[in-house]
Amino acid sequence: MYSREELKDIVNKAIISTYREREPERLYEPIRYTLTMGGKRIRPILVLMATNLFKDNIDKAIMPAVGIEVFHNFTLVHDDIMDDAPLRRGNPTVYEKWDTNQAILSGDVMAFVASDCMCQAPREVLPEVLQVFNRAAIDVCAGQQLDMDFEKTQFVSLQEYLQMIEFKTAVLLAASLKIGGILGGAIGKDADLLYEYGRNIGLAFQIQDDFLDVYGDPKVFGKSLGGDIATNKKTFLLVKALELASGDVRKELLYWLYTPEVNREAKFAGVKAVYDQIGLAEMAKQAGREYLQQAEASISKIELKPERKESLNGLIESLTDRTK
Amino acid sequence: MYSREELKDIVNKAIISTYREREPERLYEPIRYTLTMGGKRIRPILVLMATNLFKDNIDKAIMPAVGIEVFHNFTLVHDDIMDDAPLRRGNPTVYEKWDTNQAILSGDVMAFVASDCMCQAPREVLPEVLQVFNRAAIDVCAGQQLDMDFEKTQFVSLQEYLQMIEFKTAVLLAASLKIGGILGGAIGKDADLLYEYGRNIGLAFQIQDDFLDVYGDPKVFGKSLGGDIATNKKTFLLVKALELASGDVRKELLYWLYTPEVNREAKFAGVKAVYDQIGLAEMAKQAGREYLQQAEASISKIELKPERKESLNGLIESLTDRTK
Repeated sequence: MYSREELKDIVNKAIISTYREREPERLYEPIRYTLTMGGKRIRPILVLMATNLFKDNIDKAIMPAVGIEVFHNFTLVHDDIMDDAPLRRGNPTVYEKWDTNQAILSGDVMAFVASDCMCQAPREVLPEVLQVFNRAAIDVCAGQQLDMDFEKTQFVSLQEYLQMIEFKTAVLLAASLKIGGILGGAIGKDADLLYEYGRNIGLAFQIQDDFLDVYGDPKVFGKSLGGDIATNKKTFLLVKALELASGDVRKELLYWLYTPEVNREAKFAGVKAVYDQIGLAEMAKQAGREYLQQAEASISKIELKPERKESLNGLIESLTDRTK
Repeated sequence: MYSREELKDIVNKAIISTYREREPERLYEPIRYTLTMGGKRIRPILVLMATNLFKDNIDKAIMPAVGIEVFHNFTLVHDDIMDDAPLRRGNPTVYEKWDTNQAILSGDVMAFVASDCMCQAPREVLPEVLQVFNRAAIDVCAGQQLDMDFEKTQFVSLQEYLQMIEFKTAVLLAASLKIGGILGGAIGKDADLLYEYGRNIGLAFQIQDDFLDVYGDPKVFGKSLGGDIATNKKTFLLVKALELASGDVRKELLYWLYTPEVNREAKFAGVKAVYDQIGLAEMAKQAGREYLQQAEASISKIELKPERKESLNGLIESLTDRTK
């Protein structure tokens, strides 16, 4: 069994081949920049861990794992343009450092470099791997579409919100695990259980992320609190609040949401007070717990020795319990 | 043997599945718009013709052919953003009709819809098909990079220019034919010869396109003349002119290129006069003829009954002889 750190090392070494000595240099320099910015490599590690659940030798899963990471970074490069985001992991985003055209084009080539990495899967499972990958890639674009549409929509139902985070976040974690499983020899039911496991983990993770923006410890959370509240981002908390608040509480929430040029700190305190009155912190925690239980139920149906699941559980815990 | 019109019909019917009943609608509406704008479907027809060279039943090549067309249209949607182009086939471009973010995202999903279509190739040839496809997709991005870089470069060598048009135009025609060949059962040498054939046709086609912008009959060419001259676009003619012109002729050329706010008609006449003095029309025709001869040499090495090659030759002639 490989440790999480060993897997991260393997990914970081293999990923170099996706940009080194490729030409034209102007096209690949933003890719090198993006891929060496120091991400956590969660998705490729999930691919390799899932393979390692079934197999000791994970060599044939390395390039597909790299493909997942390159794909994920491709979405970041393009999302940053669409979201007007100046910084990513503390550094200027690609469109800021170069320009929008360069970010579009370097992103585009990343999409096909990712596909090309994925195609290094062994030919006997290639169609299955690519079906999961392409489906996930198409879903991730749908998730970004819903996210952009929500910015222009005043009310979003909880169901619509859950659909958005499933596409935008959960599906790629699910696909990473399923692809890793397929590469490890898992077939049919086991591969689907890994997908379900990842999907539920992803939903729990995103709801946790929404929760931490309001209730997290800024020293641990890694970014300042209240970013979502400042921009009226449709989070689990806001969607649920708009669903549940009535009377004066609703009036107060709408006041904070739609009063122009309101002070950021005052708005944060005001919206948080509304959330507290409704009891949203507990609701978010409860929703997260339920998804984690569903995830647990899926993985428990896969017949594996307990020690095989240990490192996976360790990663998942660090993903979904970031308050401490 | 299918006729060109029959193949176009097959493509137009099959392509509907790439956008119809797909959600979210906002994501797929620009795709429907783009794919129903009435392109000539040259690339997917080349795929199917190449399959049909070897096989009567072309069913299994249809979705990969559609994938090539969707990929080509993906590049158009993104290139139009980068090139600031307001119109495409007489209609507003996607970023003009919607906005840049929508054009980026709908383009992105097209890239993966294209890959997904390609993955419907039979599993026994899937790795070979995808290798050619991904390689071509990556090269096409490199071609767009060189094209963008050339806009900021005063002098481009003929070799650099040829590299750019190879990547941006020729490689996808080459890949279309090779993929079609592989799907028809061509292996090794024959598949490579189809690639070489397409590559040379593509180079001839682009040089012809450059030629027609100056020397074409506007009634037949389908767009007004002189667009390349107005923007100092690095064409075969301009690159060759800058390579060959000296003394007063060079001074005159540079005057027309770098005098700001010069009248468009005067510039066209001035640059054309320089081209005429150097004899560039004949040089361009000669270069085109040489690529066509190389193409002919490649296809003649594939052992096929002459009637099998007929419809392919018909298409190629219509591609490369558009002056009449």
